[in-house]
Amino acid sequence: MEQKRIYVDNAAATPVSRAALTAMLPYFAERFGNPSASHSYGQEAKRALEDSRRIIARLIGALNNEVFFTSGGTEGDNWILQSVCEQYAHKGRHIISTKIEHNAVLRPLERLGSRGFTVTLLEPDTAGMIYPDQLRKALRDDTILVSVMAANNVVGTLLPVKELCAIAHERQALFHTDAVQAAAHIPLQVRSLGVDFLTLSAHKFHGPKGIGALYAHLPLTPVPLIAGGGQEKGRRAGTENVSAIAGMAAALEEGVQNLAENMKALSALRDKLITEFLKLPNVLLTGDREKRLPGLASFIFEDLEGQDLVARLDEAGICASSGAACSTGSIEPSHVLTAMGYVPQISRGALRISLSHYNTEAEIDRIIEKLPGIVEKLRMKRRRL
Amino acid sequence: MEQKRIYVDNAAATPVSRAALTAMLPYFAERFGNPSASHSYGQEAKRALEDSRRIIARLIGALNNEVFFTSGGTEGDNWILQSVCEQYAHKGRHIISTKIEHNAVLRPLERLGSRGFTVTLLEPDTAGMIYPDQLRKALRDDTILVSVMAANNVVGTLLPVKELCAIAHERQALFHTDAVQAAAHIPLQVRSLGVDFLTLSAHKFHGPKGIGALYAHLPLTPVPLIAGGGQEKGRRAGTENVSAIAGMAAALEEGVQNLAENMKALSALRDKLITEFLKLPNVLLTGDREKRLPGLASFIFEDLEGQDLVARLDEAGICASSGAACSTGSIEPSHVLTAMGYVPQISRGALRISLSHYNTEAEIDRIIEKLPGIVEKLRMKRRRL
Repeated sequence: MEQKRIYVDNAAATPVSRAALTAMLPYFAERFGNPSASHSYGQEAKRALEDSRRIIARLIGALNNEVFFTSGGTEGDNWILQSVCEQYAHKGRHIISTKIEHNAVLRPLERLGSRGFTVTLLEPDTAGMIYPDQLRKALRDDTILVSVMAANNVVGTLLPVKELCAIAHERQALFHTDAVQAAAHIPLQVRSLGVDFLTLSAHKFHGPKGIGALYAHLPLTPVPLIAGGGQEKGRRAGTENVSAIAGMAAALEEGVQNLAENMKALSALRDKLITEFLKLPNVLLTGDREKRLPGLASFIFEDLEGQDLVARLDEAGICASSGAACSTGSIEPSHVLTAMGYVPQISRGALRISLSHYNTEAEIDRIIEKLPGIVEKLRMKRRRL
Repeated sequence: MEQKRIYVDNAAATPVSRAALTAMLPYFAERFGNPSASHSYGQEAKRALEDSRRIIARLIGALNNEVFFTSGGTEGDNWILQSVCEQYAHKGRHIISTKIEHNAVLRPLERLGSRGFTVTLLEPDTAGMIYPDQLRKALRDDTILVSVMAANNVVGTLLPVKELCAIAHERQALFHTDAVQAAAHIPLQVRSLGVDFLTLSAHKFHGPKGIGALYAHLPLTPVPLIAGGGQEKGRRAGTENVSAIAGMAAALEEGVQNLAENMKALSALRDKLITEFLKLPNVLLTGDREKRLPGLASFIFEDLEGQDLVARLDEAGICASSGAACSTGSIEPSHVLTAMGYVPQISRGALRISLSHYNTEAEIDRIIEKLPGIVEKLRMKRRRL
């Protein structure tokens, strides 16, 4: 009898929840109209689109017309970085971000760097933390944008977005946060954070892949990255992905409704993992011990290859990650861990366990039971080499 | 008893087919892994992704690594136009397209026009046709790209892509075709057409919304529009939309397998509509009589507003369009009809009926039965005003 696999790579992708899938299903073969069409099929699609926008806006504390749908977090990040640079180049050409951002922020910044913009990347401390004073020192008169993620995807550290945003605003710089890992994992209210722009991705909170949203604080409105038809008030062209949008709204609603309860339960599971793993020899916790995502436990096994560990865990029916999914496959160490000061020799031993409320305590116990033997075997093998 | 609505706006959006939805469903809540993850959940998602790519590549006659997934036709068009301009600006800054392209081509071209590129838009004749000689005359030594759609979305005219492409190549210009309306509606083989780039969108052939593909003829490879993680060989970042990609492959496979049969059946229905509609007074057929999409019948009711006609048809349970969906809602006449020489006063009377193989002869008969009364009533109302 095959034992059920344990999935603890929720920072890479989550299963679509029953509520989200139920919300999506009518919009494939029945209410399949194009929301821009004026007939009844079009109008019922349009209603679903705008109802979903209203739900998402309410859940993050935004106005309806501050929410624009995208094909995911990466598009949202690319879009807003390019948009701000296009709109505010006349005011200045300096951007501040951090070395621990996702590549969806770093790669577009590189490109902007080659197009006449200057990019300052703040250095995290060994816990992956960025401090207000660092930003204060980096801000210049020509800084137009600061982009700092709400929660890091590799080590789970929560960044002080509200404080950083206030500092950016003191110097008239706009503030963007990539909240892809944070949404529905920690409380997230755009007005309270004060941010000008915020990026979401549905598949990190039990919504479908291929859909996300960009929040832009009115009267700020992004210029299109993708131009064409007049969808999304002329800001993002292309037929709206109605089913996915309905799924995203349902998933976020479910996530936010159960947030306090989930945070409490996940933190307990996470802390149990951390406590038990740290009892093993030569294991380090990465990221901030306190200020971290409720469901993310990240480690370094000093004398191991994270990839080997992930492969052996997989054989044992445990699906975890050695870092960000989009960089896996490459044996390069995570740029996040490198920025935090871990030399490649060490950071290659990274293991990330990212939980969702689908995980049970029995699963965590099974991981705690299985891991030591796997680690020991890998270490013996290495010693023999 | 409510009569079933008749949906004849398939050029705007099609219902997701049973085969496509069946292909999608496992990838929401069960095989939900991130294809970049190295564990078994990731690898089964990766397999679905690459199997789908293989299917689509085979169906259009491309190599697997010539197919890149996008969030839809609009992204594909934006991407390739920007990419070619970025990569070949050193060779020249002249682009040729047509006045009847979709806004997903025209809007990005406008933007490129404001960034130092010169755009020549070929004028169609009254049938929406573009001729080889027009392109020959427009080509210059600094022309880097020609972009001509395979089939027009407003009037259904089929453009001579193969001939136009050969002419562009004689002058060392690259050739892109927006095949969003053509794929699975007419035969489409990239090697036989000779095109360098081709754009697809799944929801026009009974696949889901929010997914498309860009074909790029190797060794040509586009530079990213959306940068970040290393997905799609580093060319299009963002977690791959596995379920939608699987749905797109299944839909295209079904469409291509039944293509000959569908084309024959749809042409017969279309011609029946055309014959009967043209018996009414003051009705014009728009687009080429012969070289047109099998399922697209487009008309002008000279003394009517297309929007009124669409609204009355909708009340009678018939969902049609007055033009491109993404421009509906606006009362501006279609830029396609304007380019074809119709003055706004006339072109505002446009009605587009776009069929799929889901439509039955009984539905067509019902439209033919209902329309004359609706037209007559509207005309009487106008006369009274």
